[in-house]
Amino acid sequence: MSECISATKDAKILRFGKKKNKLFCFALNFSYLCSVKKLRTIEMQRLSVEEFKEAEKLPLVVVLDDVRSMHNVGSVFRTGDAFRIEAVYLCGITSTPPSAEIHKTALGAEDSVEWKAYSSAQEAVVALKEAGYEIYSVEQAHGSTMLHDFVPSKGRKYAVILGNEVKGVHQEVVDASDGCLEIPQYGTKHSMNVSVTAGIVIWHFAQAKINI
Amino acid sequence: MSECISATKDAKILRFGKKKNKLFCFALNFSYLCSVKKLRTIEMQRLSVEEFKEAEKLPLVVVLDDVRSMHNVGSVFRTGDAFRIEAVYLCGITSTPPSAEIHKTALGAEDSVEWKAYSSAQEAVVALKEAGYEIYSVEQAHGSTMLHDFVPSKGRKYAVILGNEVKGVHQEVVDASDGCLEIPQYGTKHSMNVSVTAGIVIWHFAQAKINI
Repeated sequence: MSECISATKDAKILRFGKKKNKLFCFALNFSYLCSVKKLRTIEMQRLSVEEFKEAEKLPLVVVLDDVRSMHNVGSVFRTGDAFRIEAVYLCGITSTPPSAEIHKTALGAEDSVEWKAYSSAQEAVVALKEAGYEIYSVEQAHGSTMLHDFVPSKGRKYAVILGNEVKGVHQEVVDASDGCLEIPQYGTKHSMNVSVTAGIVIWHFAQAKINI
Repeated sequence: MSECISATKDAKILRFGKKKNKLFCFALNFSYLCSVKKLRTIEMQRLSVEEFKEAEKLPLVVVLDDVRSMHNVGSVFRTGDAFRIEAVYLCGITSTPPSAEIHKTALGAEDSVEWKAYSSAQEAVVALKEAGYEIYSVEQAHGSTMLHDFVPSKGRKYAVILGNEVKGVHQEVVDASDGCLEIPQYGTKHSMNVSVTAGIVIWHFAQAKINI
């Protein structure tokens, strides 16, 4: 284990009792020290929903444009919670909470992450523009910026738009964006799952450490 | 549109016919130039399954340790296809193709990406170690390395292990790994969806450009 040393902080101090048990206890302790112990839930120090609401957010809104699958919607909520994004905007046919289907994958993250519903993504884009957001559609498009080349700036607010599972982001929504972010793909399939794509994009913004 | 200029390569050359149509045609052309056109499927130049099999791979094996959901398994195949990973190892209770449920999210990627089944992740780890892979469990653990701090090296082969939806990677599999990679989380929930986590980790290795 290359990283076993740092696991020592979690090591229990074993009490050596009777002499005959000494060697056994030493072996047990040594084995414990060399184990990268998984965190217990209580050690993760997660926020309560109330603390989440008050906490500083990653200045990122995720816009879902006609996303059909409630599994995808729930998963975006869950990832949005993990990286403490500002909000999810649910547009067009995208389902909204409360929903048992969304809850199955959101697991309660639909209560922590703010959300708004819009009748269309165009309407959401208008509102976001008025509020000063820089808006990117996540699409494979001519003139797109590869995600790894995109460097978010501190002090700016961003919105990323993910589209329908089959048709992607509507062309008119792409047109209304400030540009497209593209995840390069090297395989046989033409796209990735919406919730996975959202995860990669949100992670990219979170890594840029524009706030937290 | 900040990136409209680069869309010109896709612009059709409009033939100006009668003089009276000149202004209209110019306006139409200008509008086209200022549109970031989404790629058509045919423009994505994806590989065939046969080409995929022959192509150089990202030297990364994704190991699934007792992953229950076939939706997650299928999604990992699909992401694995997108980033042309070496293989997916399906361990313990993790389902294997052919499976209608896996196909629902893999959408055929289970035919392009290599896979092997192991009765346990420990068994897979033994095989990977013998084959010279550096192995990381994806877990929240004492002594873990944050994913964004981990720099994969050219010339090395890696395996990442993702665990069961509830219990994560078995502690003994963590112990047998070369270390843990952790995705920092800032919200209320204790973990992210397995397929989203896999997506973020695979993207991290793909970005490092250790081959493609």
